[in-house]
Amino acid sequence: MISRMEESELYVFLVDLHALTSVHDRERLARGTLEAAADFLALGLDPDKCIFWVQSDVPEVCELTWVLSTLAPMGLIERCHSYKDKVAKGIVPSHGLFSYPVLMAADILLYQAEQVPVGKDQKQHLEVARDLAQKFNNEFGETFVIPEPAISEQTATVPGLDGQKMSKSYGNTIPIFMEGKQLKKRVMSIETDATPVDDPKDPDNCNLYKIMNLFATPERMKEIHDLYVNGGLLTVI
Amino acid sequence: MISRMEESELYVFLVDLHALTSVHDRERLARGTLEAAADFLALGLDPDKCIFWVQSDVPEVCELTWVLSTLAPMGLIERCHSYKDKVAKGIVPSHGLFSYPVLMAADILLYQAEQVPVGKDQKQHLEVARDLAQKFNNEFGETFVIPEPAISEQTATVPGLDGQKMSKSYGNTIPIFMEGKQLKKRVMSIETDATPVDDPKDPDNCNLYKIMNLFATPERMKEIHDLYVNGGLLTVI
Repeated sequence: MISRMEESELYVFLVDLHALTSVHDRERLARGTLEAAADFLALGLDPDKCIFWVQSDVPEVCELTWVLSTLAPMGLIERCHSYKDKVAKGIVPSHGLFSYPVLMAADILLYQAEQVPVGKDQKQHLEVARDLAQKFNNEFGETFVIPEPAISEQTATVPGLDGQKMSKSYGNTIPIFMEGKQLKKRVMSIETDATPVDDPKDPDNCNLYKIMNLFATPERMKEIHDLYVNGGLLTVI
Repeated sequence: MISRMEESELYVFLVDLHALTSVHDRERLARGTLEAAADFLALGLDPDKCIFWVQSDVPEVCELTWVLSTLAPMGLIERCHSYKDKVAKGIVPSHGLFSYPVLMAADILLYQAEQVPVGKDQKQHLEVARDLAQKFNNEFGETFVIPEPAISEQTATVPGLDGQKMSKSYGNTIPIFMEGKQLKKRVMSIETDATPVDDPKDPDNCNLYKIMNLFATPERMKEIHDLYVNGGLLTVI
């Protein structure tokens, strides 16, 4: 996403209104928002080359949420997998969690976004945004850009420690700026199967391999791939 | 409600955001809002003695709707009869129609309302507002007044032409300032049973009687009551 700064008009915002669906601790939310901003800047986001803000700074997004809500067929929102998946995982079902795709549509449409970088799991929510934009345009005249998903194949789904999608709500993340013992503990808790470490293994079915693939160089990945297929002890540098 | 101007601080607003759940015609909504304002003023509402505004003039109500949404258990909203009743009557189920009680809670809590005049059918929605206020206060500290319903027994439910609750969404209203032939047509379409007009009838099961009871003087109602019970031709003056 950060690489897009140079080639397009980039809008990046920190979704504190969405975060309210899982965080009700005022200080934790404020700290989390600030830390997320620091993470983006540390990773190279240049605020002079993009529009960078906190979602709740633009209250119009809540007004648009209501307007879109009145256009959204109940079935469209009910069919969204993300809510059902979260509830199946034991997250308490709130009206806000259920309404998440409507706020997300407002997030996208309000700024006339043309391309939206999303993970595979968010593709359905982007389709909701497209449906609502089309519905609004049909009813009230051409107003909203119909947004397109921009899915990078490599990062379409980032696996977490347990192999599920990496997500703070699932508690399976490896925080980018975590250090020392804490980081080691997280990395060592990446789930693998019971195959002895120096036996041959299938890289395509290994969570550890998939995570490594997100940041290791192609040369390093080739070495690791060979070790997986042929067996042998992997040395982490 | 208007009689409350003298005795309490009265807040009256025209719910154009709620109206969006059934009206998508911009001109009809604007005209309807203006006409509703004219109706209130014609009925004696004195804007110098109350706060009188259009719902969407205060965009903060949409922000609070989102915040309350994240606190609202899905089951609380799912249990609301009004949505189910409307869908059962053939109204297209939209996410906005479903979320109506959350916006209504924001309407009430934002202004720290102490008493809310509601019809019987809205009592459950007021309970949702109370629940959300209590939940918010428990989580974030004392913030919102817990509102009380103010249900006038006589006007708890105003029956429409068909005996159901009078509601624009049901198309069964008698508009207050309708005149002449149009008004006559509406009044003549009030549904009654097949009992011949001068036979005795049960006033408690007659829609026409219930409507009349809302505005006729007690003396006139006594006359009508006698005619119902004993039979005889009712003369409408």
